Amino acid sequence: MQTVLRSKTGVEAIISPNHPFTVIGERINPTGRKVFSAELREGNLSRIPLDARAQVEAGAVVLDVNVGAAGVDEVALLPVAVQMVQEAVDVPICIDTANPAAMEAALKVVRGRPLINSVNGEEDRLNVILPLAARYNAAVIGLCMDDNGIPTEAEGRVAIAEKIVERAVAFGVKADDVLIDPLVLTIGADHRAVLTTLEATRLIRQRLGNNMTAGASNASHGMPDREMLNTIFLAGLIQAGVNAPICNPLQNALGIRAVDLMLGRDEMGMNYIMTFRQMQSRASA
Amino acid sequence: MQTVLRSKTGVEAIISPNHPFTVIGERINPTGRKVFSAELREGNLSRIPLDARAQVEAGAVVLDVNVGAAGVDEVALLPVAVQMVQEAVDVPICIDTANPAAMEAALKVVRGRPLINSVNGEEDRLNVILPLAARYNAAVIGLCMDDNGIPTEAEGRVAIAEKIVERAVAFGVKADDVLIDPLVLTIGADHRAVLTTLEATRLIRQRLGNNMTAGASNASHGMPDREMLNTIFLAGLIQAGVNAPICNPLQNALGIRAVDLMLGRDEMGMNYIMTFRQMQSRASA
Repeated sequence: MQTVLRSKTGVEAIISPNHPFTVIGERINPTGRKVFSAELREGNLSRIPLDARAQVEAGAVVLDVNVGAAGVDEVALLPVAVQMVQEAVDVPICIDTANPAAMEAALKVVRGRPLINSVNGEEDRLNVILPLAARYNAAVIGLCMDDNGIPTEAEGRVAIAEKIVERAVAFGVKADDVLIDPLVLTIGADHRAVLTTLEATRLIRQRLGNNMTAGASNASHGMPDREMLNTIFLAGLIQAGVNAPICNPLQNALGIRAVDLMLGRDEMGMNYIMTFRQMQSRASA
Repeated sequence: MQTVLRSKTGVEAIISPNHPFTVIGERINPTGRKVFSAELREGNLSRIPLDARAQVEAGAVVLDVNVGAAGVDEVALLPVAVQMVQEAVDVPICIDTANPAAMEAALKVVRGRPLINSVNGEEDRLNVILPLAARYNAAVIGLCMDDNGIPTEAEGRVAIAEKIVERAVAFGVKADDVLIDPLVLTIGADHRAVLTTLEATRLIRQRLGNNMTAGASNASHGMPDREMLNTIFLAGLIQAGVNAPICNPLQNALGIRAVDLMLGRDEMGMNYIMTFRQMQSRASA
């Protein structure tokens, strides 16, 4: 399986098992960011280019762009945000919205080959988002939930992943271009939450072989030392088969390089050592 | 598979897959500790009870005891060190020496049911250490190396593990009482070093099912931010099947609790949160 994304100038992000994994930067998202949410409501997008550059410098090779806060007109704002990101940096874009009209508006302005975040197993979403992916030749993230919610057991999530891939192919999207997100729930609410995700990840890697993404930081809400937990959970998810994690490279950069090093994907440890030095020079700057 | 160790008063450490893993504290060891090495040469063991208590407070449930430094008479000193540890704390002991005479001297004074560190696939070691384990009813760690050295490929290490278990059974040691150490080499010398260990660990878990130990800190020599690397590597090894890691609980306590939390072995995250609070109160003390 190989998913190829492209930036405005054709810079490729190749997502494939056994490659060093692809970091999708998650910071351009108002969830949990009060100041950014308020700025978006005022139409102030000045933070976006800064967040874009900082994440790429810290190792993100794809950037997620989400402006979905209460009181924000996503159809108007998302295309502007996408354009600002692709002016600031030269990496592929992941268009992140629950609003299909905003999705299409952003697809019209994005250049290169983007990723769509996201479809899931709900009939309405499959029938609206997959045709958009096909029409605009985008890759797409499929979340393992459907009209019945998020299955609490791994097998249920695998079944939804299979359904999404089948439906995508039927709509003309290649299986290679469907990234599965096995979904990470909050461990404070269910202590087996991450374990279930790990099991689903292993099963999807074995049975479907699709590339996978996941947002590990969801799991640690309400727990102390979230940064440590996020790093450990990311390490676990990557070892189980996630190869395009959505995370904050400004926090987790060294942790994810450590995982690549562990998995034999970093000759002489050069990426790890370089990342360490970059973080040191940023800390002392 | 279940390995049961016991302290002087019968406190059990039960090592078994899918149980929360067992932390074997590694600090009572002069390797890399110049001051401790010098003290041992002078016959000064005053640091040992302090190291023993600190590790048990930080979550170690078995303590490794090693006094093997240049210029130290292990046959005389090791039994004294073992006695000091079992006076200071009430946990099972892991007797760690390459010297069979020192091993037997320590076995004569240890109370409860200890672990022997270690035998390996070398004929001389098998024929000397396994009879000691049988005679003193001790569990034993088997290192995946033999007269030809440490195999660079996972399959070679699995073959040695199989041989050690077979020979142990022939000498009257139960397979349950053989912990395998797949050996962690330095990643700075070979960037696939940890990956090979992970592969060997998974194969041993599948084919033999034995409990496993490993000393993750070897891998990070010469790398920056060793504590981060040690935590990630431990997380990887535990996920692959190591369930009785030898580590420094004073450094890695929170990281290993995070792994238990990830693997669904810590209801409500209580152990993780308690460890976090203990570390905080120690840091502010």
